[in-house]
Amino acid sequence: MTHGAPRETFRFPVRVYYEDTDAAGVVYYANYLKFMERARTEWLSAKGFGLAVLEREHGIAFAVRRVEIDYLRPARLDDRLEVTFDVVEGGRSRLLADQEIHRGHEVLTRARITVACLDHRNWRPARIPAALLPHMEKPA
Amino acid sequence: MTHGAPRETFRFPVRVYYEDTDAAGVVYYANYLKFMERARTEWLSAKGFGLAVLEREHGIAFAVRRVEIDYLRPARLDDRLEVTFDVVEGGRSRLLADQEIHRGHEVLTRARITVACLDHRNWRPARIPAALLPHMEKPA
Amino acid sequence: MTHGAPRETFRFPVRVYYEDTDAAGVVYYANYLKFMERARTEWLSAKGFGLAVLEREHGIAFAVRRVEIDYLRPARLDDRLEVTFDVVEGGRSRLLADQEIHRGHEVLTRARITVACLDHRNWRPARIPAALLPHMEKPA
Amino acid sequence: MTHGAPRETFRFPVRVYYEDTDAAGVVYYANYLKFMERARTEWLSAKGFGLAVLEREHGIAFAVRRVEIDYLRPARLDDRLEVTFDVVEGGRSRLLADQEIHRGHEVLTRARITVACLDHRNWRPARIPAALLPHMEKPA
Repeated sequence: MTHGAPRETFRFPVRVYYEDTDAAGVVYYANYLKFMERARTEWLSAKGFGLAVLEREHGIAFAVRRVEIDYLRPARLDDRLEVTFDVVEGGRSRLLADQEIHRGHEVLTRARITVACLDHRNWRPARIPAALLPHMEKPA
Repeated sequence: MTHGAPRETFRFPVRVYYEDTDAAGVVYYANYLKFMERARTEWLSAKGFGLAVLEREHGIAFAVRRVEIDYLRPARLDDRLEVTFDVVEGGRSRLLADQEIHRGHEVLTRARITVACLDHRNWRPARIPAALLPHMEKPA
Repeated sequence: MTHGAPRETFRFPVRVYYEDTDAAGVVYYANYLKFMERARTEWLSAKGFGLAVLEREHGIAFAVRRVEIDYLRPARLDDRLEVTFDVVEGGRSRLLADQEIHRGHEVLTRARITVACLDHRNWRPARIPAALLPHMEKPA
Repeated sequence: MTHGAPRETFRFPVRVYYEDTDAAGVVYYANYLKFMERARTEWLSAKGFGLAVLEREHGIAFAVRRVEIDYLRPARLDDRLEVTFDVVEGGRSRLLADQEIHRGHEVLTRARITVACLDHRNWRPARIPAALLPHMEKPA
């Protein structure tokens, strides 16, 4: 067993284009949730669970159940950001994660996200694939 | 038969929110296409062909095949706009339409849109429902 | 003083178009925040504080500081929704509000939103206009 | 002078996330314009003209004047696409470009875009920066 090694934070780069901003000159508040989902999708993909694989081979999809998000500082046009993803707790069919959006050393946005694993045909709770679980366990 | 009466232009109101704008202080160029689709959807709905009806009862969906759009003047935050819809030509499985976006008497955007009628399961061309055709004929 | 009369919930209708949905067949999770902001904007506008008025005459803008949102049931294409807005607590330069998205009698989404009033030139906290305060007081 | 060497097509990768798709299971038609603008922005940035540089140092911004776009085949969730950008003709204050969206060897979308160079304070036509012109000349 590998003890004591904290799991590494997953990081995904995002650049801010016009499409992401609004007339206040900053990234529109709903769009940070898009950036965060891109990072979650890339994390899953990096573990071998691309969206198509999840749906076709496992018959599941992940759906967001709850978001708590704090907007600390605005991101702006042309910014190069980094979106982080850390599993806080993985359950049978639920995942609690922390995500942040950074610009260099500044934290712009901080969120706690609850994601549910669903059977993608009937939207009922489904088990998270066993092969994903080791990536979600609390590091010792 | 009703001759000589040109079909009336369909009009749908849209208000500009932050979500529609970008850091240049104007409506983001792709978002005018959203406004135009809202007007097409409301036109179909007004004729008794809501999106759910089209899919469930007729097994079809409309998909845009081509857009030519001219951006003449920018729309801005809080503007109250009007989106127009005029059928130019209706075919067996295609529809050609003109759409404009107005702010009062100004024309901000002008587009010609080609829409195809598709079988929503296999995405093959499908016949436009007969009951819709009278709304698409060239006025005499 | 008017005692005992609870302030009425503000309600704003929204229809779900293709632009709002995603490949899972439901409204994309970030887009509920757009619907909620439309309702806030319309509430302000109904009180005489359209976005342009706020910026030009008062030099302020409202920015979201925190969102807690629960996704209970998905909204779907063509749904007719109602977005509610209730002030929970109004401060000098902050506003706490509850918002829900309903489809008929079902609650689909429930959120608590913290909004800050900012000087729109320097993004520093600013006082909420006095004329808005009566609309934000706790009903007795 | 360098004759005969056709300018190389600029290519930019895009991955399709849930945010890009709609309930028809494909990329929403307006969102291809977002992908195309990302590629234009990255082309400018690769030439040393990031959006912030254009605005701060040159006082200009680029605005789309006209789009002709053909939707040939739909892109789907999780697709890895490539967006191309080719200057067709560069003028004093206008740029005509061809853009395509590819999935492997398939062309999904094809567009001709007219972009205007504007003074970013008054939105009047402005000269394209001299240093950009060599990148826009017709290859001999």
